[in-house]
Amino acid sequence: KRFKIAVIPGDGIGNEVTAEGIKVLDAFAAYKGNIGFDYEFFPWGCEYYLKTGNMMEEDGLKTLEKFDAILLGAVGDPSVPDHISLHGLLIKIRQGFNQSINLRPVKLLPGAPCPLKDKKPEDIDFVVIRENVEGEYSGVGGIRFPDRPEETAIQTSVFTRKNTEKIMDYAFKLAQKRNKFNKVTNVTKSNALNYSMVFWDKIFQEVAGNYEEITTETTHVDAVSMYFIQKPEAYDVLVASNLFGDIITDLGAALQGGLGFAASGNLNIEKEYPSMFEPVHGSAPDIKDKGIANPMAMIWTAKMMLDFLLEDSDTEAIIKAITEVLVEGKTLTPDLKGNAKTSEVGDAVCEKLKSI
Amino acid sequence: KRFKIAVIPGDGIGNEVTAEGIKVLDAFAAYKGNIGFDYEFFPWGCEYYLKTGNMMEEDGLKTLEKFDAILLGAVGDPSVPDHISLHGLLIKIRQGFNQSINLRPVKLLPGAPCPLKDKKPEDIDFVVIRENVEGEYSGVGGIRFPDRPEETAIQTSVFTRKNTEKIMDYAFKLAQKRNKFNKVTNVTKSNALNYSMVFWDKIFQEVAGNYEEITTETTHVDAVSMYFIQKPEAYDVLVASNLFGDIITDLGAALQGGLGFAASGNLNIEKEYPSMFEPVHGSAPDIKDKGIANPMAMIWTAKMMLDFLLEDSDTEAIIKAITEVLVEGKTLTPDLKGNAKTSEVGDAVCEKLKSI
Ligand SMILES: CC(C)[C@H](C(=O)O)[C@@H](O)C(=O)O
Ligand SMILES: CC(C)[C@H](C(=O)O)[C@@H](O)C(=O)O
Repeated sequence: KRFKIAVIPGDGIGNEVTAEGIKVLDAFAAYKGNIGFDYEFFPWGCEYYLKTGNMMEEDGLKTLEKFDAILLGAVGDPSVPDHISLHGLLIKIRQGFNQSINLRPVKLLPGAPCPLKDKKPEDIDFVVIRENVEGEYSGVGGIRFPDRPEETAIQTSVFTRKNTEKIMDYAFKLAQKRNKFNKVTNVTKSNALNYSMVFWDKIFQEVAGNYEEITTETTHVDAVSMYFIQKPEAYDVLVASNLFGDIITDLGAALQGGLGFAASGNLNIEKEYPSMFEPVHGSAPDIKDKGIANPMAMIWTAKMMLDFLLEDSDTEAIIKAITEVLVEGKTLTPDLKGNAKTSEVGDAVCEKLKSI
Repeated sequence: KRFKIAVIPGDGIGNEVTAEGIKVLDAFAAYKGNIGFDYEFFPWGCEYYLKTGNMMEEDGLKTLEKFDAILLGAVGDPSVPDHISLHGLLIKIRQGFNQSINLRPVKLLPGAPCPLKDKKPEDIDFVVIRENVEGEYSGVGGIRFPDRPEETAIQTSVFTRKNTEKIMDYAFKLAQKRNKFNKVTNVTKSNALNYSMVFWDKIFQEVAGNYEEITTETTHVDAVSMYFIQKPEAYDVLVASNLFGDIITDLGAALQGGLGFAASGNLNIEKEYPSMFEPVHGSAPDIKDKGIANPMAMIWTAKMMLDFLLEDSDTEAIIKAITEVLVEGKTLTPDLKGNAKTSEVGDAVCEKLKSI
């Protein structure tokens, strides 16, 4: 089977890391024998914006609709305000394609540098299910009395039952499938956010009722942030709102050795629209075109795309290959205190893949 | 000079830790000679709620108005929903008394257990200025179509220019006073929150214009959370919204050895109303009445109250006394792997204070 992949390298290091993701996808296809990928590249991003006034083609979503999946590098450049670049591309695709689930694994691989004392790879292995199309990112709000002393800014979070139920349900199913502690942690802040998060907790309880064999726990986001440092081994699956998921997964990235390891999938689980896969890291304009960005997060992201496209296929070989490169320690980028190039890391992972 | 202090021990371990805060305040007064405190105790909290249906007297704010300051232990009990107990007492006082600045030092004391590899006390020493009366905690919102498939929850953040300017200005003044890096970090999320945080950044830039000698930096809250772990030594003063301040200060607490060390002041800097001082930790119902809660956060909080009441007086002796107890390591509560009682720690701090 051949898959049609839309590739949006985006800005900064996006190009460099995306090339390595594709390299590994092709190596995996060769290794499996019965699959292949056709890529189409889209030059959207901040440069495109500076030329055209849009971050992507106006009917870009229509163009993307016919693909099986989207692989995105990174978006953002100092020359364009962030809220424009992101609402014009990344957030537009997430919301426009109803990619309501943002799946973010946090796993410390052997050989990756953990900043915590006394924590080992087996202590850091959980998954955050982040709500991805509404909540705090709804984009609803305004400014009253601009620039006057009475100026007031309003930003409204909107949570719907349908979407909230969907992501909670996905979290419980994932806990069943992982079969680690059979546990889902609800990340909330209902002690302060007296409508949205009280509602969120209620839906969590309702959905939990359908999964009696799964243990549940409800913890405020501030406490979760602290516990990630103090007892990451307590977690299995966490379910969090758009904003809270954003924050705790960057924290998770720190635990697993940095953004060089943080992968994510923006899933439209109904498969009405393509899903989009992107590393959590940004465009890192300071190291753009130096060929030294760590491509491991992108390679891991490509693996997540395979999981979604192939469903039953075993893609763990890719994680094993990354781990072997890490443990060997010879081909690492400067963020991991090595002096390898981005492309050498991609090559090394492909090489390992051959012998697994 | 004598100060009138309203004491609200609250729930759980609130009573136990408050007693030690008072013990140290009195010891400090004896040591200074020319000050004293008159305490009045208020039995408000969840027990009070279960008896009366209110978390505090209905005209409680009126009663509190005549005090010089409020010392609060902790609020919350499993028998009362959190959003009721907190909006009925803690948040009611913060907002009712326009305590718009929540001052939260994050400082790793010698002898306190830091969870990070390679970080020393000199690496972790910053202050978070948290907005404290509006923003995400405005309490504005509602539920449409309750319990129906179309159910929608709405929560609105409200930011005013006046209040935002005030806390930004306070942050810059504090950076001047600390004279560490002369740096203020703006904690934002304007790439996603396209009204409130874009406004927030604008006010930050405006206020920064009045402090040319202070370096500024604007960082998204997700990145700040990661950097707290990777490079806490980069920070001096941070200014954050109500919710972001909440999250990053719990994270800060983890860095400085746990909630046993996290102190805070809710300041009405205009002094139209009393300010309130409270440790960041909760009521910890699981260890209530066991006499084993760590009172150091409360003692540190009492020190912050002194700083606010006395303005010019040197209260560092209290931090020195806590540090000596820590470094000596003989009188520590179980969270610090000791077997001392709460009251023994208070006694030990008072004892050290005598000889400083
Ligand atoms: C770039 C930004 C809008 C984005 C987000 O907040 O979702 C990023 O931080 C992420 O986590 O994917
Ligand atoms: C108890 C809760 C409402 C409170 C807050 O979120 O402000 C607490 O977490 C804090 O940090 O003081």
